[in-house]
Amino acid sequence: MRTVDLIAKKRNGHEHTKEEIDFLIAGFTKGIIPDYQLSAWAMAVYFQGMNAEETAYLTMAMVHSGDSIQPDAIPGMNVDKHSTGGVGDTTTLVLGPLVAAAGVSVAKMSGRGLGHTGGTIDKLEAISGFQVEMSQAQFYQQIKEIGIAVIGQSGEMTPADKKLYALRDVTATVESIPLIAASIMSKKIASGAKAIVLDVKTGKGAFMKTLADAIELARAMVEIGTLTGRHTVAIISDMDQPLGEAVGNANEVAEAVRTLKGQGPADLTQLCLELGANMVLLGGQATDIQTAKEILRTCIADGSALAKLQQLVEAQGGDPAFIQDLEKLPQPKQIIPIHSHADGYIAEIQAEEIGLTAMLLGAGRETKDAKIDHSVGVNVYAKVGNRVKQGEILAELLVNASDTERLDEAKNRVNRAFRIQSEHVPQSKLIYAIVDANGVRYFNEA
Amino acid sequence: MRTVDLIAKKRNGHEHTKEEIDFLIAGFTKGIIPDYQLSAWAMAVYFQGMNAEETAYLTMAMVHSGDSIQPDAIPGMNVDKHSTGGVGDTTTLVLGPLVAAAGVSVAKMSGRGLGHTGGTIDKLEAISGFQVEMSQAQFYQQIKEIGIAVIGQSGEMTPADKKLYALRDVTATVESIPLIAASIMSKKIASGAKAIVLDVKTGKGAFMKTLADAIELARAMVEIGTLTGRHTVAIISDMDQPLGEAVGNANEVAEAVRTLKGQGPADLTQLCLELGANMVLLGGQATDIQTAKEILRTCIADGSALAKLQQLVEAQGGDPAFIQDLEKLPQPKQIIPIHSHADGYIAEIQAEEIGLTAMLLGAGRETKDAKIDHSVGVNVYAKVGNRVKQGEILAELLVNASDTERLDEAKNRVNRAFRIQSEHVPQSKLIYAIVDANGVRYFNEA
Repeated sequence: MRTVDLIAKKRNGHEHTKEEIDFLIAGFTKGIIPDYQLSAWAMAVYFQGMNAEETAYLTMAMVHSGDSIQPDAIPGMNVDKHSTGGVGDTTTLVLGPLVAAAGVSVAKMSGRGLGHTGGTIDKLEAISGFQVEMSQAQFYQQIKEIGIAVIGQSGEMTPADKKLYALRDVTATVESIPLIAASIMSKKIASGAKAIVLDVKTGKGAFMKTLADAIELARAMVEIGTLTGRHTVAIISDMDQPLGEAVGNANEVAEAVRTLKGQGPADLTQLCLELGANMVLLGGQATDIQTAKEILRTCIADGSALAKLQQLVEAQGGDPAFIQDLEKLPQPKQIIPIHSHADGYIAEIQAEEIGLTAMLLGAGRETKDAKIDHSVGVNVYAKVGNRVKQGEILAELLVNASDTERLDEAKNRVNRAFRIQSEHVPQSKLIYAIVDANGVRYFNEA
Repeated sequence: MRTVDLIAKKRNGHEHTKEEIDFLIAGFTKGIIPDYQLSAWAMAVYFQGMNAEETAYLTMAMVHSGDSIQPDAIPGMNVDKHSTGGVGDTTTLVLGPLVAAAGVSVAKMSGRGLGHTGGTIDKLEAISGFQVEMSQAQFYQQIKEIGIAVIGQSGEMTPADKKLYALRDVTATVESIPLIAASIMSKKIASGAKAIVLDVKTGKGAFMKTLADAIELARAMVEIGTLTGRHTVAIISDMDQPLGEAVGNANEVAEAVRTLKGQGPADLTQLCLELGANMVLLGGQATDIQTAKEILRTCIADGSALAKLQQLVEAQGGDPAFIQDLEKLPQPKQIIPIHSHADGYIAEIQAEEIGLTAMLLGAGRETKDAKIDHSVGVNVYAKVGNRVKQGEILAELLVNASDTERLDEAKNRVNRAFRIQSEHVPQSKLIYAIVDANGVRYFNEA
């Protein structure tokens, strides 16, 4: 088998066999196939695509490139959840304790944030004493005991994906649906998921700008799940504005606590119930979606979801005092309100600008080794479609920095992120569709 | 300017500016832009193409990547000729002396052969004593004195093209018309051509398998010529069978001598007159193609073309005795006839198989440093459309090797190259079309 022939095969629009995909990925990971061949191949894939089988082969080739957890090693029916990125996405912090309280096994491996989207591990480290490193034996033991554990991603998993992603990033081959789908699914499968619920974001603040692209990505991932024996369901949700109110770390933890108490923002609560109900269903704790939602509402109402969060924090060495008193989370020195400059309707909130502002204030990292300030961030109170008055508070900056130049830039960015117009604007939809092995169902409710 | 953005720009089907092309090629040549980015870019070009301006920018960026000869440095109106490759293509050996005799300045830089297509420099070295290396001052002086000089390509010319071609060869991005066109034209322009006549081969034995592709390549090169101020004309000629009879080195030199005497194969003679007449026209020695052809026929008839070959050989240190006595060229130990195995019509002669056989016998090189045996090769006497009888000689192997296994393979290859059928087969066309700045004209004669 010659790499150049495989590149030509894909370039000419033909399908790869499993052996060909294995040859390419194993050779690339070992450094036998040079970067310049894989990048040309990736560009050919960009133009010619890959069918479901090829994409599943690629996924499993990346899983096999490094360490992976066998699904059976994890106690219980482990259902993993993944979001395709977004700004102020607190769902994982809410869903972990919530579905664990409903009896679904949560073995979560999470990443750190890079750029304007935050990472769950960073958010959890806002909790005093919380440890995200443990041995695999401890990880399994904790899941067995309390049904939930959250750890940082191992450096040995899916090295092929890491190497390929780094190459795609500098060769303009990131935007390929099958390559994105295989990248996401390989990480989920390598970390031992028995079933997977995906939250595919769409909109201006998301990687998939259009609903059609988001559905195509969702389909590709559901097909990989079907072909590799992991039930997979994808929710297509809105990222035309930040989800919930909080964008940062400690403020997102506080928001998660409020949501687990039934006092969270409506959009975050609705999406968590939708994603959570699908996790409960795939986890075998309910046989229909309405029952699954009822179970979750009960876990919130009777305090068992919040109790599960307390168990998780204690099990991983954290101080659970913040659950009763949110002021015990890291607090910023200063809170700066951002006022509406006009009367009118919110037409747009650029989520990416909000995310970049939170990063600018210190809540995210621009480089891999940068330190995070857990207390800072942005709270966004207005939503698209809201009617606002001049001078009304739209958002707040949570600030520690004394650098006035940086602060001015942050204020300007958040101001610019809001577009206000005099004509009425409809509220934007939160959930557009659900994609599973049976196809796509579009949602009618807002 | 970031390379990844330029790759994305081309991937998305947009046009590059001159500055962008210069940035890519200069960065790549200096090793600042890595291979893996250029290969992804080349694949994007494969799918999205480049317009005439972009292709001309690329051509000139490659010319400027290394040493080049200013057209004005060469005495006279230097018209260069290039063939896009083929098997047994003796045209350069004939055309050089022929058009020089007609007053066109011939400053020829030629390559060595690699694989199954021969190189003019290798063929000339079949002449005892012939030197292909000289200083630039000597090169210009010889052109001034006798109107013709032929030297090997300098290692310093178009390094960007060499590096890019090597990369394309292993990344399945060779088959891109604008990249092929820029590669060919950059070498012609760097070696000082004032005008260019191209022989674009089409057919089973050529790189461009279809007439449409050959015409597209011809158009792309003519457009580069127009945009860079070099009048360019392209002849589209047949490579469904070897041109002339001889495929090798010494046998091709002998064939060239016979052609310059007016006793060459009809197809080789016709193509040389067509290409040569266009060179005479662009060289300003005639104002219409018929007059140009008459001038060339006179140069053959009055012996001045042959005398020019003698001058060339003497000027470059060769022994011209072979011109009077072709037996003085290197002779093979053995000549093995290949007989027709059936009565019928020649339906096909696979030129590539013939070329590979000549290489197998020692006439070409498989690796860059291999030695060539100038005496060996293949002579093909039959042409497509000929009626042949069982036992009739179709071809001859010119052989030195005593390796019977290799000899058996050579016999089998040449045998297999001929397809004979009982139904009548029309003779194949030699020249299909001519492409110049005014467009395409198709030829009606066979």
